[in-house]
Amino acid sequence: MSMCDPSGGNSFTFDFFYAQHTCSLASHIALEESGAVYRIHRLNLDSRDHHSQQYLSLNPKARVPTLITPEGVLTETPAILFYLAQIAPASCLAPIADTYSFSRIQEFNSFIASTLHVAHAHRMRGHRWVDDELAIVAMQKKVAENMTAAYTYIEHNFLQTDYVVGDQFSIADAYLFTFAQWLEDDGVDPAVFPKIIAHRQKIGSRDSVMKALKAQFE
Amino acid sequence: MSMCDPSGGNSFTFDFFYAQHTCSLASHIALEESGAVYRIHRLNLDSRDHHSQQYLSLNPKARVPTLITPEGVLTETPAILFYLAQIAPASCLAPIADTYSFSRIQEFNSFIASTLHVAHAHRMRGHRWVDDELAIVAMQKKVAENMTAAYTYIEHNFLQTDYVVGDQFSIADAYLFTFAQWLEDDGVDPAVFPKIIAHRQKIGSRDSVMKALKAQFE
Repeated sequence: MSMCDPSGGNSFTFDFFYAQHTCSLASHIALEESGAVYRIHRLNLDSRDHHSQQYLSLNPKARVPTLITPEGVLTETPAILFYLAQIAPASCLAPIADTYSFSRIQEFNSFIASTLHVAHAHRMRGHRWVDDELAIVAMQKKVAENMTAAYTYIEHNFLQTDYVVGDQFSIADAYLFTFAQWLEDDGVDPAVFPKIIAHRQKIGSRDSVMKALKAQFE
Repeated sequence: MSMCDPSGGNSFTFDFFYAQHTCSLASHIALEESGAVYRIHRLNLDSRDHHSQQYLSLNPKARVPTLITPEGVLTETPAILFYLAQIAPASCLAPIADTYSFSRIQEFNSFIASTLHVAHAHRMRGHRWVDDELAIVAMQKKVAENMTAAYTYIEHNFLQTDYVVGDQFSIADAYLFTFAQWLEDDGVDPAVFPKIIAHRQKIGSRDSVMKALKAQFE
């Protein structure tokens, strides 16, 4: 596959599986930014579409997002973002030639996936880690504190420009925007995070973001 | 910095901060495999070394591992593994020229960081997500089930050869080995996972792994 043509010179159409109100928005934004040709497939989590045999054959984890590439299936947001940045270098979704800066983006994305997303998920998906209903309530009580700590780290260690890392849009911006949409719902005070709120407003006005959000909810 | 010389042609010595019995072993193995020149710094978590002002100035998250590179600090295991694979291409720690295969490694590492490691952490670090002691006990009850599910996914979707992805050692092997050490402690039945157990044995016999383990515990 060509490193310069996200469609592989073959008019390949990527298939992208997502659900509304999930982290799959980040990959959807990156797809839009990449210039790739893709079809979207909405899963209704309430109807348990992600547990259908057809979907499990693609993604046995029963999670979103899933991307079908010319070489095979790919899951996990940080990996999909990495893949799209690599196959569409002209779209500059990551500083591919600058190993340290690209690693800082990987560091940020890994923090979102393994700390911030996990803290967020303890609010509405506590059943992943516990069966006891009282314990689920106890988990929910700590969500605002953990999310505030995660956003404090981001506010003070990234966003030195209008963007998460470096001075232009990258896959990290798509990932932060996705979660920052839910900042108030997670019990976090937006007044404490001026950089993150300004970032949310700026990234939210990009064509790619508006197009992905419109497609996800129309 | 040269892409071919992990020491940057400058005899740069990396500083690596770790703690015993943690995921920092994965990065330590990759450092050893990379050929980089590095010093190790042990943190005693019981003494709260990771909360010292000196360490927090490097890693405000108060977690291990932390790597000091010529360009700056780097944290988060998947990012450190990615960085080491990139700066030491001669060591072949990832299929850098094969975007899809490298993305599969990223997918695997992201799954370890955001699902498997998180499920594991609910056994001994439940206080991260809850203050209530009874809820911590409730969390621990589900660890074996969640870890078994995570290892089932790995057993059936990776390890098609002796290695996690592709037919040679990569950063993903260092990461899987690190957690597979604790498989029985997490309440998982090793008899159900012949590939993972064989992998653990094979990877555990590598010079890099034995050297890293010896250094961490001597």
